[in-house]
Amino acid sequence: MITIVIDTIGGDNGAAICVSGAIEGLKQNPDVKLILTGHKSELESYLSEYEDYDRSRLEIIDCKEEIGLNEAPVHAVREKKDSSLVVGLKLVKDGKADALISAGSTGAILAGGQFVVGRAKGVKRTPLAHLIPTTKEPALLLDCGANVDVKPEVLVQFAEMGSIYMESVCGVKSPRVALVNVGTEEEKGNALVKKAYEILKEKDNLNFTGYIESRAIPYGKADVIVADGFNGNVIIKLYEGLSRMILKELKGAFLSSFSSKLGAMLVKKSMKKTLKRFDASDKGGAPLLGLKGLVVKIHGNSKEGEVISAIAQCRSFVENDVNGKIVRGFENA
Amino acid sequence: MITIVIDTIGGDNGAAICVSGAIEGLKQNPDVKLILTGHKSELESYLSEYEDYDRSRLEIIDCKEEIGLNEAPVHAVREKKDSSLVVGLKLVKDGKADALISAGSTGAILAGGQFVVGRAKGVKRTPLAHLIPTTKEPALLLDCGANVDVKPEVLVQFAEMGSIYMESVCGVKSPRVALVNVGTEEEKGNALVKKAYEILKEKDNLNFTGYIESRAIPYGKADVIVADGFNGNVIIKLYEGLSRMILKELKGAFLSSFSSKLGAMLVKKSMKKTLKRFDASDKGGAPLLGLKGLVVKIHGNSKEGEVISAIAQCRSFVENDVNGKIVRGFENA
Repeated sequence: MITIVIDTIGGDNGAAICVSGAIEGLKQNPDVKLILTGHKSELESYLSEYEDYDRSRLEIIDCKEEIGLNEAPVHAVREKKDSSLVVGLKLVKDGKADALISAGSTGAILAGGQFVVGRAKGVKRTPLAHLIPTTKEPALLLDCGANVDVKPEVLVQFAEMGSIYMESVCGVKSPRVALVNVGTEEEKGNALVKKAYEILKEKDNLNFTGYIESRAIPYGKADVIVADGFNGNVIIKLYEGLSRMILKELKGAFLSSFSSKLGAMLVKKSMKKTLKRFDASDKGGAPLLGLKGLVVKIHGNSKEGEVISAIAQCRSFVENDVNGKIVRGFENA
Repeated sequence: MITIVIDTIGGDNGAAICVSGAIEGLKQNPDVKLILTGHKSELESYLSEYEDYDRSRLEIIDCKEEIGLNEAPVHAVREKKDSSLVVGLKLVKDGKADALISAGSTGAILAGGQFVVGRAKGVKRTPLAHLIPTTKEPALLLDCGANVDVKPEVLVQFAEMGSIYMESVCGVKSPRVALVNVGTEEEKGNALVKKAYEILKEKDNLNFTGYIESRAIPYGKADVIVADGFNGNVIIKLYEGLSRMILKELKGAFLSSFSSKLGAMLVKKSMKKTLKRFDASDKGGAPLLGLKGLVVKIHGNSKEGEVISAIAQCRSFVENDVNGKIVRGFENA
């Protein structure tokens, strides 16, 4: 049995989507047990609307505290020991749960992962990984912001963890791993990536394909895209901001005249199908890798579907022993 | 009289667009003299097609060598002293020209700017600046890749040079200057940006608005966007790659069915108008700032229009004494 905690406080859409996602998750995954941390009476009230589910695999832990989006993360995680997030992370740390899913404050999730759950043996830093859409399959970008100042050896570990994740959880055989740089030639780059490159090209446990320029990322030229947390954060947020801006501008263009409004109705269906591919949310949330357990951050505005995907993702992570592979890999290094 | 060199070798569209751009540039700017460096016989042959222009303001300097796109930049600039680029840069260095425009190898232009023209007094590093499209006016992003490892004081100079450029050349009053970071809160960021922030917020010659996250860049939240050359390069190339990818995918969607093809015909006009705003090329090329003269890199695939815009840009740069302002600013620092 795999045990997954769902932190039900902090998401934009409240606890209701966590409950409905949990019910569906239990149905789809007979080998999964779920623990909901949050306001018990509220959760029980949502649960009372459902009948047809296996209650023996669902536990609720009442928590009195909440961590807000604007609280200083490290302080909040240290002080609010009875928050739904910290209680859940403690369960993972103590081995009572394998994974935790949260739609709460990213900062608090990152800080809590490090300070409450703790790093797995041999792991130098724990990167936040995001699946990003490309013209082909989604690629895993890491680190998306957990570690903004890193050494070359840390980037190398990110590459290894990302490769194991893509192979084990997303089923990509021998994932192509690339390092973000300002050019693809060996002599290009800053001191950090040049040193990391030297180490990466000697690694025979990786399918390292060399440098990747950011302009090539949307075209699916790599499965695992490695960057420090500063650059990765810049990439993931620009990806999000620019896509939204372009689509919003086009919407504005469509509404600007009668004929374009009519035309928009005709292209709508094809466009939706295309844009659906840009949506990586059905592949699960953003895992914080290298911890003693798994912590998955889902978008603040997640709905039931994201919770369900994240449950499947956690299950796949545990079943495929991703953490075991990471730890063994770093022990042998 | 303002003298501008046009390097006519190295662009994808050959010397013809340089000649036609030069002819039109002479007409539009009666106070400008142009020098074309390149293959004299070829240039004369293109020129022979035009009659109605002031030949007294147009000079040709014959150059025997070419710098290819795949040559190691520093080596090429040092060895090929009779290339159209190096000859042109030498004219700027010697004060015989005020500015140079080139569509050739970016690496060679950057290296040549530094090694042939040289830095202006007090300038620590010379950033490559690009105007990038936003939902409002274009913003100036610098450094786009000239300096991948920098100190905080260098970022501060980038902010000051960018601000002077936007105010003097683009006519933006008191430009809003922002520093790229992973969050907008003061405590966020890597060591580099935190230190730069401390200095920037004390500068009373700048309208420094604090940190900017990359997701806010497309929405025009700042006029001058400051980053180190590594991050700036990642941003400019992702901007380019992602916009192209999305538009290509949408085109594919439009062609996927009969009704969407029909719809596409109806939205085409409104879309074109919108997408035109994403095109920053009519604002001129990318200036390499902080040199003893001005060097402007225009896109490899530039056409006549980009050459004309770049001539106006160089003229405005010189007329508004941007370099003088930069040097005086750094002397007083």
